[in-house]
This record gives sequence, C-alpha cells and structure tokens, in this order.
Amino acid sequence: MVVPTLIERKRDGGALTPAEWRELILAYAGGSVPDYQMSALLMAILWRGLSGTELDAVAEAMLDSGERLRWDGLDRPVVDKHSTGGVGDKTSLLLAPMLAACGAAVPMMSGRGLGHTGGTLDKLEAIPGFRTSLSLQETQAQVRRIGCAMIGQTPEIAPADKRLYALRDVTATVESIPLIAASIMSKKLAEGLDGLVLDVKTGSGAFLPEESQALELARTMIGLGQSHGCRTVALLTAMDRPLGRAAGNALEVEESIAGLSGEGPADLMEVTYALGVEMLLAARLAGGTDEARRMLEESITSGHAREKFGQLVEAQGGNPAILDDPAALPQADVIEIFSAPRDGVVRRVEPRRIGRAIIALGGGRQQVDDVVDPAVGFVITARPGDAVRAGEPIASIHARSEDAAAGAARALAEAIEIGEAAPVPPLISRRVTA
Amino acid sequence: MVVPTLIERKRDGGALTPAEWRELILAYAGGSVPDYQMSALLMAILWRGLSGTELDAVAEAMLDSGERLRWDGLDRPVVDKHSTGGVGDKTSLLLAPMLAACGAAVPMMSGRGLGHTGGTLDKLEAIPGFRTSLSLQETQAQVRRIGCAMIGQTPEIAPADKRLYALRDVTATVESIPLIAASIMSKKLAEGLDGLVLDVKTGSGAFLPEESQALELARTMIGLGQSHGCRTVALLTAMDRPLGRAAGNALEVEESIAGLSGEGPADLMEVTYALGVEMLLAARLAGGTDEARRMLEESITSGHAREKFGQLVEAQGGNPAILDDPAALPQADVIEIFSAPRDGVVRRVEPRRIGRAIIALGGGRQQVDDVVDPAVGFVITARPGDAVRAGEPIASIHARSEDAAAGAARALAEAIEIGEAAPVPPLISRRVTA
Repeated sequence: MVVPTLIERKRDGGALTPAEWRELILAYAGGSVPDYQMSALLMAILWRGLSGTELDAVAEAMLDSGERLRWDGLDRPVVDKHSTGGVGDKTSLLLAPMLAACGAAVPMMSGRGLGHTGGTLDKLEAIPGFRTSLSLQETQAQVRRIGCAMIGQTPEIAPADKRLYALRDVTATVESIPLIAASIMSKKLAEGLDGLVLDVKTGSGAFLPEESQALELARTMIGLGQSHGCRTVALLTAMDRPLGRAAGNALEVEESIAGLSGEGPADLMEVTYALGVEMLLAARLAGGTDEARRMLEESITSGHAREKFGQLVEAQGGNPAILDDPAALPQADVIEIFSAPRDGVVRRVEPRRIGRAIIALGGGRQQVDDVVDPAVGFVITARPGDAVRAGEPIASIHARSEDAAAGAARALAEAIEIGEAAPVPPLISRRVTA
Repeated sequence: MVVPTLIERKRDGGALTPAEWRELILAYAGGSVPDYQMSALLMAILWRGLSGTELDAVAEAMLDSGERLRWDGLDRPVVDKHSTGGVGDKTSLLLAPMLAACGAAVPMMSGRGLGHTGGTLDKLEAIPGFRTSLSLQETQAQVRRIGCAMIGQTPEIAPADKRLYALRDVTATVESIPLIAASIMSKKLAEGLDGLVLDVKTGSGAFLPEESQALELARTMIGLGQSHGCRTVALLTAMDRPLGRAAGNALEVEESIAGLSGEGPADLMEVTYALGVEMLLAARLAGGTDEARRMLEESITSGHAREKFGQLVEAQGGNPAILDDPAALPQADVIEIFSAPRDGVVRRVEPRRIGRAIIALGGGRQQVDDVVDPAVGFVITARPGDAVRAGEPIASIHARSEDAAAGAARALAEAIEIGEAAPVPPLISRRVTA
C-alpha cells in the first residue's frame, strides 16, 4: 500500500477499492499510517465524496477495527436510536427505559455535548454517582438483566472512528456527510442491533440545518444500516427551537423523569412517542403504529418505564432518590425568572443561542476538557406560537451567580423573539425508510 | 490563530489574509502547527487555489522563514535561472560559468533528481570531490571571488519551504501550481537576485506536460518575481525528448564540458543560448538580443566560460582534471551500442522512459536515500526527425553489468520510436514576460 498514491487517486476524483480502504483504515487505527497523510485524504474526501461502495467499505473497516456487542441466546430484539444532536433533546433518557419496559433490549451508546448541542452522557452524569463508562462485559450483562444500559463509546468499539474523529475535529474535515454517516453507523452497528431509529434534526439549531442535507445524511445512514442487516429508519424532526422546556443537564433529567411519570411537555412527548413507535416496529415487537403507540403509553401509565429508569440509575451507580426528589439532583445557586419584555406572539426560540448561553453559564464545554456544571440552564415555558403579555414569566434561569444570570437573561432576550404570529413548522417533517 | 477555522475558510472557498498566512507559515516552520493540520490545508489549497494576494503572502512568509544572500557593494548584477526539470537538461552547468564570464554574479541553488527527471546537484557530484553543500558565507565569498557558485538548498534558506515540500511529497499535494510557484520562488528570491530566467518545460517528459499549465506556472512565478523587485522572464522549452545527447550524471558533465569547449550538440546549445540571452538582458549586461548572443558566443570561443567552469570545480573541491580528461569522471563497467531495429525516421525519444531507465540502471533514485551511480546512463545520438537505417548505431548504454545493459536496451527500444516522419515541435515555443 503506497499511501500517497491512494490520496492522489481520491484527490483526482477516483475511487479506492474496498480492500484498499480496509487496509488503510486498519493501518491508521494501528498507528502505521501517520495523521498527516490521513488528514490530507480526509480533505480529499470532503472535496470528492465517497461512492456507496467506498462508504460501505469505510464503515465496515471502522466497525472491524474494534469489537462488537454479542447477544447470543438473548430472547429480546436489540434496538437503539441515534440523534444528530440538539438543544433540550432528552428523548434518549425516556426511550431507553420505555423500550426496555416494552420488551426490547437497548444497549444505548451516546456522546457528550458538542458545540452548542447537549450530550446524553453529560445529562446522565448530572445524576449523582451515575457511571457511564461501563465495560462491554458489564454492558452486556446489564442489558440481559434489566433490558437497557446507557454508556459512552468504549475503547474497544470502533477505535478507528475514535482516532479519525479526533483528527477530523482539528483539521476542519468534520462536515462530510459520508464521513459523518460512517462515524455514527460504525459505532451503532457495533452494538449488534436488530433495528435502529435515527432522529435527524433539521432547522437552525441542527448540525445540518438544511432539510436537503439532513435527508441526504438520513439516506446515507439508512443505506449503511440496511447493508449490515440492521432495520434502519429515520425521522426528520424540528430543531429550529429547543425540544421540551428544560435545557441544561440536571434540568433535563428532571424533565425526563416528569415525562416518564406522565407529566412531560407535549412537544417532547410527541417526538419521544414517534421515535419509540419506530423502535418498536424495527424491533418487530408491535404489528403496527397504533399498537406500538398503545404499548408505549401503557409503559408510562403503568409506571413500568419509570421503574425501569430507576433500575437503570441504580445499576449504573446513580442515586435512585432523584426519581422522587428532584432536590437530590444538583441545584443552581441562583434561580431567576425571565419575563416577556412585550405583548405579542412567540415567533422563535433560537436553539443555537440557547445552547451557547448554556455553555456561557458553565453547563457545556468551550474546550474538550472543560468541567461541566450540571445544575445550570433554562426552563423555557413559552413555545413558538404562544401569545404572551409583557411582564408574564416565560422562563427561569438557573445559574452559578447573579452576574452569570444577568448574562443569560441578555442571551434569552435575543433568543426569544416576540412579535406578530408566524407559522410554526411541524415537529416531525418526514419519515425516511430504505 | 485558530488553525481549524483557517482550514475551514480555505476549504469553503474563502481566502486567508496576508497576516494569517504569515503567522501560519512561520508557526509551521517553527513547529507549533502540526503536520496533520498543514496537510489538510494543503489539500484544501489544491481544491480551492490561492488568490494572487494569498500567493504573495505565502511566498513572502516562506522567504522570511529563513535568511537571504547579501550582495552589498557588489559591482555585478546577480542573476540565476531555474528549470522545472527534465531529462538530459544540463544547461545550468553551462550557464553559470558562461554568465560569470560575461560579468554577472550567479549564485545558483539547485536540487536533486526527482521522479524521472535529473538534478543539477547529482550531476555536479559526479565530479570527484565536488562539494555542493556550501554555507551561505562560503557561497557569498565564492561568488564575489569567481562570479559563480553552484549549491544545494542550505538549511538557512526558506526552511518553511523545505518542511512544506517534504510534507507535500508524502501527502499527494505537490501538484498545485501556486504551491509549486511559491516553493521555487521563495528559494530563488532568497538568493537576492536582480534577474531570474525560468525554463518551464512542456511536453510528455515535463512535470506539467500541458502547455496551458506550463504557461500558468510561468505567469504565476513571473508575478511573484516582479512583486519582489526581481526582473523575471520565462521560456517554454520542449521536454517531449531529452535535451542534448547525454542523459546520466557523469555523461552529462562530459557533454557540458564539450558544450563549453564549442562542441555541444545543437539542441542543447540552442536552449542554452536562448536562456543565457534572457539572463544577460535581465542582468542588463547587454542592450539587446544580438549583443547578448554575441557575448555568450564570445565566452565560449575565447575559452573564458570553460576556464570559469574550471575555477568553479576547483573552488568547490572538485578535480579540475575532468576538463581535459573525461576518463577522470566515473566510468561505467559496461558500454554497449544500441542500433536502430529498422529503417525509418525517428518519431519520438520518450523522455519519461529514458528517465525511468536511468533510475533502473542505478543513476537515479527510487527512494530519497538511494545512492546514485554517477557513471550510468545513455548517449542517444539519433534525434527526432533523423532518418536511420536498420543496424545503424543510434545510442550507447552505460551500465554496471551486462544484465543491467540488457534491461536498458529493452527500455531504449520502447523509448525510441522509428517509423514515418512526424512533425518535430520547436525547442522553444514561447517567451513569457510580465
């Protein structure tokens, strides 16, 4: 393998063979291809793209660079969901226990907050004691025992992806749809899934704001899932506003528990149910949409999903007292009310501004090794389309200090636009299948 | 300076400011920007190009990463020429002493063989004892004393270019016209020149075979030269065949001495005189083309240029006996005659095949640290357009062994095409000025 010759071919618009991709990626993961050659190749991929055959080979090699979860003899279908990331998106915290309560096995591997978007691991770690770094053995044992686990990417899972992602992050080569798809799918396919549901966000707060790009990413990931024998379906959901009311790690855990207790906000529950229905269908645990929806509602009303969440928290070292006592979650020192500055209709709640304001409050990361304050964030009760009056409370700010709260109030004033009524896009705009 | 943000801007088709280029390139030369970020940026440059303003800044920063030759108080104009590289191109060995004999100062900095093309340093090192690694001090003193020096790139000259070139070589990012131009010109401008003549090769054996690309490179380099106060002009010359008869290091030195003695082959002398005329005009040592040509011819017929070459060889530690006794140059063990396989007209002598055959004989490099055998190569007496008869000697093969010679004969049979007469392109196709 002469690496510059391979880079040159991609640079000039040609394709590498599946065997070349495999050798190259495994050599890179093994350290025998240097970063400086891989980063030049990554930029050439951004320029020239990858064919479907190349993409399959790339994802397969990334998957094969590590281990896979094994479910031999398990009598439940194994399913997961993946979100491309947003603000206030805590559906994973509801869906893992709900699906486990419905009879699925859910080995959910998630990430941390990235840019303005939150991360499931950061939310879970707001629960005192909660441990997300389980080994593959622990994960398999826990899923077999209680039906679900929520963990971070382990070193054994797709190490080639881990090394590639770190390189892409510092070489401006993240924004390639085939590379994004291969990165996500190599990790998800390592979970040994029967079915996978993708929540691809669109709108101003999404990683790919344009619907056409979101659709291309969805189709690319579905193609990779199907070619690996995993039933894969995608929903395109709205990220032109935060999902639910709470944004910030501990506040989102509290809202998730409310959701599992039948008291979740309507928008959060609509997206959660829609994704859950797809997961049950992909798992073949329900014969149709209506049956699936009834099963999910029953998991809430019966208390089984909430109970399952308690088992999950306990199994991973977290304090289960948080289920009944929100005060057991980290609390902010300063809580201030934010009121509508004028009469009118809420036209927009801009998620990027909210996400950046959470980072400014200390609830997210500017740099990879920043420590996250779990207690800070917002609860925004006014939704796009709501009529409000000047002086009416529409949000609460949870901060470390008065100063930080004042800064967050200025950010909220810019993020929440009040004026004439404007059309509100649907929460779920498309269902994409193979 | 946030490097990924700069890479991202170039990737998306934007431009970096001159200050950003300067900081980035000096930081790279200083080791504080890693190779993996620079190689991604280099690939983005291949994709998106560089504006004229960006190119000026890149070349300027590469130049300023090191030192420059200083000519304070020198009463001669300082000139040099650069060739983009070919097979059999030994014009540098003639021009440095010829121009010095005509009153110019020529601090000629050259390179080694690259791919199928030969390198001036390798040719000079075929002279027993010849030392090409002079310091800047030694170079300046020698040029002041005898009018010329022929050296390799010193560590003090454009170290940013040296590091960048090594990276481009292993990341398939060599083939960018602005990067090629900046690399060449940063080194040439460090010589502190009043005038520079570029020999840009075109045709199948050239680095850029298409005339349109050669022209673009010429214009780009001329722009950089002019904006640094160096009178720069380019000739586009033919590299669809080797230049002169000899190809191989010691054989080319021998042919250069023949040229300085008034016995050079016509094609070699035509290109040498044409480049020399431009050098004298750029140096303002001649008022017009005819005067310049007469001065150069006089430098040969008077013996002054040959004498100057003797001084150069002696000054750099070489054995001056080679001037009168070609046997003092390294000699091949095996010399075989190659005869025309059929009657006809020589249609082509393919320079890439000749260059690769020299490498196969051991006279060039497969890898950077290969040792070069100076004695091997070819003397090809048949030129495109010559009528030949079957069995007529048309070349000699100089090799280490019978086996190597047999392989070289097979390569020659493929390189030299004999058939119906075909038009022969002119040796000099264009003169390009600012």
